[in-house]
Amino acid sequence: MKNRWFTPLLVITTCGSAAAHFFLTNEPIRFAVASLSLLLWAALLGKATEAVAHYAGERLGGFLNATFGNAAELIIAIFLVKKGLFDMVKASLTGSIIGNLLLVLGLSLFFGGLKYKTQSFNTMLAGHNASLMLLAVIVLFVPAAFHGGLDQQEVRTVSLVISGLLILGYLLWLVFSMITHKKELGEEPAGTKEADANFIPPTVDEPAWSRGVSILLLVVSTFFIALQSEWMVGSIESVAHALGWSELFVGAFLIAIIGNAAEHSAAIFLAMKNRMGAAVEIAVGSSLQISLFVAPTLVFISLLFGRPMDLTFTPYELAAIAVSAFIASSISRDGSTNWFEGVLLLIVYAILGTVFYLV
Amino acid sequence: MKNRWFTPLLVITTCGSAAAHFFLTNEPIRFAVASLSLLLWAALLGKATEAVAHYAGERLGGFLNATFGNAAELIIAIFLVKKGLFDMVKASLTGSIIGNLLLVLGLSLFFGGLKYKTQSFNTMLAGHNASLMLLAVIVLFVPAAFHGGLDQQEVRTVSLVISGLLILGYLLWLVFSMITHKKELGEEPAGTKEADANFIPPTVDEPAWSRGVSILLLVVSTFFIALQSEWMVGSIESVAHALGWSELFVGAFLIAIIGNAAEHSAAIFLAMKNRMGAAVEIAVGSSLQISLFVAPTLVFISLLFGRPMDLTFTPYELAAIAVSAFIASSISRDGSTNWFEGVLLLIVYAILGTVFYLV
Amino acid sequence: MKNRWFTPLLVITTCGSAAAHFFLTNEPIRFAVASLSLLLWAALLGKATEAVAHYAGERLGGFLNATFGNAAELIIAIFLVKKGLFDMVKASLTGSIIGNLLLVLGLSLFFGGLKYKTQSFNTMLAGHNASLMLLAVIVLFVPAAFHGGLDQQEVRTVSLVISGLLILGYLLWLVFSMITHKKELGEEPAGTKEADANFIPPTVDEPAWSRGVSILLLVVSTFFIALQSEWMVGSIESVAHALGWSELFVGAFLIAIIGNAAEHSAAIFLAMKNRMGAAVEIAVGSSLQISLFVAPTLVFISLLFGRPMDLTFTPYELAAIAVSAFIASSISRDGSTNWFEGVLLLIVYAILGTVFYLV
Repeated sequence: MKNRWFTPLLVITTCGSAAAHFFLTNEPIRFAVASLSLLLWAALLGKATEAVAHYAGERLGGFLNATFGNAAELIIAIFLVKKGLFDMVKASLTGSIIGNLLLVLGLSLFFGGLKYKTQSFNTMLAGHNASLMLLAVIVLFVPAAFHGGLDQQEVRTVSLVISGLLILGYLLWLVFSMITHKKELGEEPAGTKEADANFIPPTVDEPAWSRGVSILLLVVSTFFIALQSEWMVGSIESVAHALGWSELFVGAFLIAIIGNAAEHSAAIFLAMKNRMGAAVEIAVGSSLQISLFVAPTLVFISLLFGRPMDLTFTPYELAAIAVSAFIASSISRDGSTNWFEGVLLLIVYAILGTVFYLV
Repeated sequence: MKNRWFTPLLVITTCGSAAAHFFLTNEPIRFAVASLSLLLWAALLGKATEAVAHYAGERLGGFLNATFGNAAELIIAIFLVKKGLFDMVKASLTGSIIGNLLLVLGLSLFFGGLKYKTQSFNTMLAGHNASLMLLAVIVLFVPAAFHGGLDQQEVRTVSLVISGLLILGYLLWLVFSMITHKKELGEEPAGTKEADANFIPPTVDEPAWSRGVSILLLVVSTFFIALQSEWMVGSIESVAHALGWSELFVGAFLIAIIGNAAEHSAAIFLAMKNRMGAAVEIAVGSSLQISLFVAPTLVFISLLFGRPMDLTFTPYELAAIAVSAFIASSISRDGSTNWFEGVLLLIVYAILGTVFYLV
Repeated sequence: MKNRWFTPLLVITTCGSAAAHFFLTNEPIRFAVASLSLLLWAALLGKATEAVAHYAGERLGGFLNATFGNAAELIIAIFLVKKGLFDMVKASLTGSIIGNLLLVLGLSLFFGGLKYKTQSFNTMLAGHNASLMLLAVIVLFVPAAFHGGLDQQEVRTVSLVISGLLILGYLLWLVFSMITHKKELGEEPAGTKEADANFIPPTVDEPAWSRGVSILLLVVSTFFIALQSEWMVGSIESVAHALGWSELFVGAFLIAIIGNAAEHSAAIFLAMKNRMGAAVEIAVGSSLQISLFVAPTLVFISLLFGRPMDLTFTPYELAAIAVSAFIASSISRDGSTNWFEGVLLLIVYAILGTVFYLV
């Protein structure tokens, strides 16, 4: 970062947040300091991701970012599963999925689209992402659809079988996208298209850091974002309850927005640099990772704690996930985006937010 | 119109219809004369739209036609809202949406496809239309899906928020399609494709009227179609009840077919001249305008009358709208059409008609 | 077949199966012998289909195969309709549709994709197949969605009207795909694409038989597969009941897998020879034929027996069909396939199998 005051401010807010967490009991102050620190770390993560993506290529960079971004959510969710707060877990997973598909993708498309008339990315990747999203919807929909005909034990068996199959599918997707079809899903095709039209090299400026430093910053800023997220979540509940907001709204919107701050900033940064492939990989890849990897992993982890969790989401959560997946898949399927498509995603997010707030 | 007898016939039937409306009480005669007059005005509107589209370009011409075509429905719906007949309003909106997506588009594809083997239009426009249709379905589906968890007041709040967001989205769509991305959504790409293959200039004959006369005829014929539609609707109810048809069927099919006569004839005319871009713009654009602009506007207008209307459609109406949007979007997404795709749309229309008749 | 022992083994198992069927009462032995004979006939059918496809072109060959493959199911279903076992008929139709869309297509994509990095077929055909699948889902969904508002007699009327429209649509599809747009849906476009890349002529080896012998073998092996399927189905029920499996699982999975053995082997053979167009035609074409032709035909045939059957499927069956159609259409829409897309289809099949087993 070129700004002289950035590093001092980062250190001050982080120390301040730690001090507030351990020594203060005033929740609004804790909340405010943690938020500020989180935003600065998210900005640093955005820069670090950009640099890593420069060295590693768009897709691997996007994958790394999505994984680091979800590490925070996975850790928080494990603590919730341990306490048996399954409804809160599912609400925050739902919120993460729709937040990534609608808010992160919507803002990326909107701000990227204001700068570039049309942005494009690999259509084969877009098609596979759409099919994987559909798989995620199907998989979460099946236990609910057949719920009436199954007893509690059978629902758990179905959840375990589905979880195992999903993790298998996710591992095979990694084999497919990172090994056997790495080249086909890469950034070349999009690059060629741009070359035909008015070619602007996506990243003209060299990254500020070397490869090693970039990766280190990626790891460190992810760690601090996870830490600050958790502290913030701890105080946000009492703040939210003071404002009279429902648990579903807090779990699915507030926690999810804050927990995904990293993805938000990184994806929007990349979109505004016309690296739409990496931005989509973060937004869509992150929600796929949650539904195809984080959710089934939590089912198995719940077994370790001796409190088996199933995969049965509420109809409201399923409706929200299905709606998000359909509109995001319809918009991204052609591998070409613009600002209006971002507006559509944000409108659906606002509608779901309104309904979850009132329910 | 080249036919010497066209103008006299138009004047005679219009005067006859007015005479029947003010001086006769025999409903079947009123109905028959108004129908005949309506058909002739619709034919004139078709020609006028063609001429305006010649001067204004396919998309603006299609948009003007869709707007003029929906003016009639908006006026009728406002009168129904004033009387508090919300169920009838929603049935006729449903009927308009499915009538445009299935009947108008189906007939255009079928008759256009009989003449030209494959007809194509801008795929970017097709993709956006599909996404907008999906948004419309989502938006009408959300209040119904969350209905159980909301009280009457909250349903109204949700309906108002959604209506505001939809109107915002529709205005931004106009900005997008008429200003920022006008060129990309235009007719050139389709034109280029045709040029590659066996090029037949879409409109070989010069329009019969100048630009000003064409626009005047567009406005005048739209006005008379609205007038005749209303008179016809007035008498059709008693005719239909005499035949023992249900209110839902009359609202969703009979009123919708007659109210959309203008779109029907104009779209089919254009399709048979191989101007598929304009035909699709009329059919799909008209149903989008109804769901994204007319319906939310009626919610706000209902507030003015002191009788707030919500956006909660019945499950039957939602099923019909969803089914229509999915099949129409599946067929039009690739920007290429043929007669068999028209048959598919007409089959779905016939199935929905049968079910609505019996329910 | 080059193997010297193939023909003797085929004759021995077929005679053995006949002997077991008529003279033995030990169900497991009957089952085992019929299975073995069935597998060998299926292998022969695979070879014969390949040879016929060589002479007739991919699409006609695929169509012939799908038709011969479904002849067995139609015959079995007619016997079940005659006995009034409507639930079993619908379960086996459901099983056939999802078996073809998920298992047959999934295995073809997977094994074909292991050999060839990316396999492609005509995108126009893929788009029409997707739209037809959607039509099938809509059509089976409508009677169930409006079930609440209709009495028993009206459900039958709706079923008859829908069946008539479906058969009309299917006949027009044959006109479209075999007459008016035969060339556009043919194999050329895929062939050209391959030519651009690394061209391997799809069938380097000449078929072993002449045109006439190939067709004869197609007919004969289809006949024996139908015969062995029926004998196997006769004994499988008692075997299955001994194992404690539910009727729904047996109808929708076991009977469907065995009844489609012919399609399975033929489609996988063709996929592994990089003739993906013909493989998709068998898998998707077969499930379309069942939903658009076999099911409505059975409704009319049920009238002849004086026991009218309706088209109302159970919610579980509808959910399974909808899920299969959506994922298969999402995957095949782009006309390009790979091994991972096969994995996705197989995962969904495994999930549905688990749920149907437990329900």
